[in-house]
Amino acid sequence: MQPNWLAQRSYLTPNRIGLSYYQEKWTFKELYEEAVRIAEKLAAFHLHKGDRIALLAPSRPELILMIYGCMERGIEIVLLNGRLSPYELQYQIQDAEVKAVLVHEEEKQKLPEDVEYILFTEVFHAEGVEIEAVEEWDDEATISIMYTSGTTGFPKGVRQTVRNHSSSAISSALNLGLKEDDVWLCTVPIFHISGFSILMRSLLYGMQVRLYEKFDVTLCAAEIAQGLVTRMSAVAVMLERVLSYMEEHGLKAHPNFSSILAGGGPVPVDYLKRAERLQLQVVQTYGMTETSSQTATLSSEDAMQKAGSAGKPLFFNQIRIEGSKKPTDEGEICIRGPHVTPGYIGRFATRPALDAGWLKTGDIGYLDEEGYLYVIDRRADLIISGGENIYPAEIENVLLAHPAVKEAGVCGMDDSVWGQVPVAFVVLKKEAAAEELLSFCKMRLASYKLPKNIIFIDELPRNGSNKLVRRKLKELLQ
Amino acid sequence: MQPNWLAQRSYLTPNRIGLSYYQEKWTFKELYEEAVRIAEKLAAFHLHKGDRIALLAPSRPELILMIYGCMERGIEIVLLNGRLSPYELQYQIQDAEVKAVLVHEEEKQKLPEDVEYILFTEVFHAEGVEIEAVEEWDDEATISIMYTSGTTGFPKGVRQTVRNHSSSAISSALNLGLKEDDVWLCTVPIFHISGFSILMRSLLYGMQVRLYEKFDVTLCAAEIAQGLVTRMSAVAVMLERVLSYMEEHGLKAHPNFSSILAGGGPVPVDYLKRAERLQLQVVQTYGMTETSSQTATLSSEDAMQKAGSAGKPLFFNQIRIEGSKKPTDEGEICIRGPHVTPGYIGRFATRPALDAGWLKTGDIGYLDEEGYLYVIDRRADLIISGGENIYPAEIENVLLAHPAVKEAGVCGMDDSVWGQVPVAFVVLKKEAAAEELLSFCKMRLASYKLPKNIIFIDELPRNGSNKLVRRKLKELLQ
Repeated sequence: MQPNWLAQRSYLTPNRIGLSYYQEKWTFKELYEEAVRIAEKLAAFHLHKGDRIALLAPSRPELILMIYGCMERGIEIVLLNGRLSPYELQYQIQDAEVKAVLVHEEEKQKLPEDVEYILFTEVFHAEGVEIEAVEEWDDEATISIMYTSGTTGFPKGVRQTVRNHSSSAISSALNLGLKEDDVWLCTVPIFHISGFSILMRSLLYGMQVRLYEKFDVTLCAAEIAQGLVTRMSAVAVMLERVLSYMEEHGLKAHPNFSSILAGGGPVPVDYLKRAERLQLQVVQTYGMTETSSQTATLSSEDAMQKAGSAGKPLFFNQIRIEGSKKPTDEGEICIRGPHVTPGYIGRFATRPALDAGWLKTGDIGYLDEEGYLYVIDRRADLIISGGENIYPAEIENVLLAHPAVKEAGVCGMDDSVWGQVPVAFVVLKKEAAAEELLSFCKMRLASYKLPKNIIFIDELPRNGSNKLVRRKLKELLQ
Repeated sequence: MQPNWLAQRSYLTPNRIGLSYYQEKWTFKELYEEAVRIAEKLAAFHLHKGDRIALLAPSRPELILMIYGCMERGIEIVLLNGRLSPYELQYQIQDAEVKAVLVHEEEKQKLPEDVEYILFTEVFHAEGVEIEAVEEWDDEATISIMYTSGTTGFPKGVRQTVRNHSSSAISSALNLGLKEDDVWLCTVPIFHISGFSILMRSLLYGMQVRLYEKFDVTLCAAEIAQGLVTRMSAVAVMLERVLSYMEEHGLKAHPNFSSILAGGGPVPVDYLKRAERLQLQVVQTYGMTETSSQTATLSSEDAMQKAGSAGKPLFFNQIRIEGSKKPTDEGEICIRGPHVTPGYIGRFATRPALDAGWLKTGDIGYLDEEGYLYVIDRRADLIISGGENIYPAEIENVLLAHPAVKEAGVCGMDDSVWGQVPVAFVVLKKEAAAEELLSFCKMRLASYKLPKNIIFIDELPRNGSNKLVRRKLKELLQ
């Protein structure tokens, strides 16, 4: 059991700032009181401890307050990605069997037509119902659920528990350190673990979240240069824009600024060199939805000599390489620790997430002689584009649903801005134009998943057992 | 399960300094390799995982290495207090049923005559036996055992597990913060939780322990002033000496120095004011053997306005007041959290330590309106003298064993140097001089427990049920 984080944080440091958004600020006491009020209002909608809801909203304080309200009440939160198509959202809402979908007014048009929802304003304006406070949280209780795909192309709802989030936040603090005046800039999506985990750290550390609705390079660079923030999470494309802006405007990182935590694949060495000149520390990290954020990090000091590495595990985490004779040979990266999900919900609920306590990531990598992890191939040919994960099978499944398509294969293509973008290879069974296939995809896929190019081909590269070899698609690209 | 801390720390930060002693230094890699070597040597004495040994040694690197060797091997460590009498040590060694007593050459004369022991040098010079590494530690495994008395006067062996120590260290970091270059000055006894917990933090944080064999005010003040250390644990009497020295020599705390963690009762306001003038932050703490160190702390900022308070609980800890109508009324302080011992060994092994998860401390206190804890009366009339706990019943039991003593009652007397010192009230059944009773005590009690005064009296103050009222002894003193 753990004390209710919101109540405990408000008790311990009531007057510290827990959240800021432009000029607005909330102390932890105010956040807690808001969370209690929202919990009382949710009770008016018959939403209680153990129930599951889905949230769809922009990254604004209302979303944070709604999340804290759900946590206060012990309601499981399915975080919906606002960039997904209605078709994709429909799948997640149905699979999660949520009791309600809570949606911000401005995003309700993103929902599939036949989904019932409750607007944020309806919740905020409801008359609250008096309820009993939840004083302690079970370590195994689910706080959040995020969907992630895999080999099948069917997204799986990953449970992230009280223990997962607390151990992740703790391991991160043991690694990065912790100052009383830390402020973590959150401009990555809250519906991804990169953003959500900042909220969890805030509650456990008593640390301010500096929230942006969208990535704003001008504001971001200014706050780093003035030391108004001390930490930031970013993907490479954001980092590059911050670097360019700071270079152009002659800005340097303030000595109070500790580091940028950069996820979603290795940061190009060129960026690291430029960051160094700006006195900006970059900590690279390897993590995933199933590990509730970071599982390994590469410190700023090691960044150059270990370029391309994801670093070493955090203290309570273990990483091992399976399927190779020794860890320094390539094999599957397996992860163990209190930050690893206990499993899935919905159609994958019965599929064990772990093998004797170990999460088999599907990612291929190795450990060097000193134990630094190198990730050399992503699970299920995962494409990471501007920090968003794209699974080829998801796009292939959509293409195969088109009546003209006989076979489809998707792979990632290097892109100077986004890191990678998806490209599709298609074998037709009857005539169809690329535009037609693309508009078919648009109806069903988030825009960042749309193939940047559709290439018609006579046959797809397959192996002896007739399985698609996506690696060979990449060769065809060159 | 947790990864073996020694192995994990050596893997993650092999080249960071983990221990220093005067000019000597050990990296975490060196500490780990030493620990493995000692574990192999202990195996030569048939000491293995799950066995229990007792340690008696001065606070020197050999003791730290021996502790780490035992931890590496999964051997439970009973930490013997070198200030105890042979009589007291005998009790603990027997009660703990240890498989071996490991003693440093210089302290072997402290042991009771008939106790078999293994000298540190014998271990260090032994030929090691190759053993299999213990890769993971069970959260419930006992790392250390420390004896503490109570109402009965019979010391109880308190188990401190992997979970207890890790959660204590984590909660402390969430509260005090953590810097990569933190160095914790350890000049409090390793056989007390105040010292032992510094070692645990070192392994979990990757932090240097700056070890002193004895408290050395000159060195200590110099290292604080030069910023060579950043944290220090102290009791009030040590703090006062540091303050005096720094005042006399015109020293100020270095900006790198974070704070002194002061335990063993509230720090006099006068000390706090003097510390402020020296830019020395003092964090007061309330903790005990059963909570593996701190359970509540009072931050430096709050020290003045909340003088006399022990502060608020650490994040994962809960404190409640029982036996009163509301928490702001006096009652028994009860503590819950992952840092609380699961129980005792030896003769108290079957006595449950917890009541529905709560440790009933026996201490009397209250929470003010803002939730700050005030400890107003210690359990079992506990006397804290220079950081050492003295239980009146222990001294009374010894006095009662003297043939001339009919009744005995002990209480604490305020002392400007030690905070408190014990004083005994004795009802004689036949003639005896105070000196005779004192030398009788000397044979059986640690010197810090010896009554500073023996007062002969006709009868002891008792209540209706004929129970000794020690509070009234204090009144007799005035």
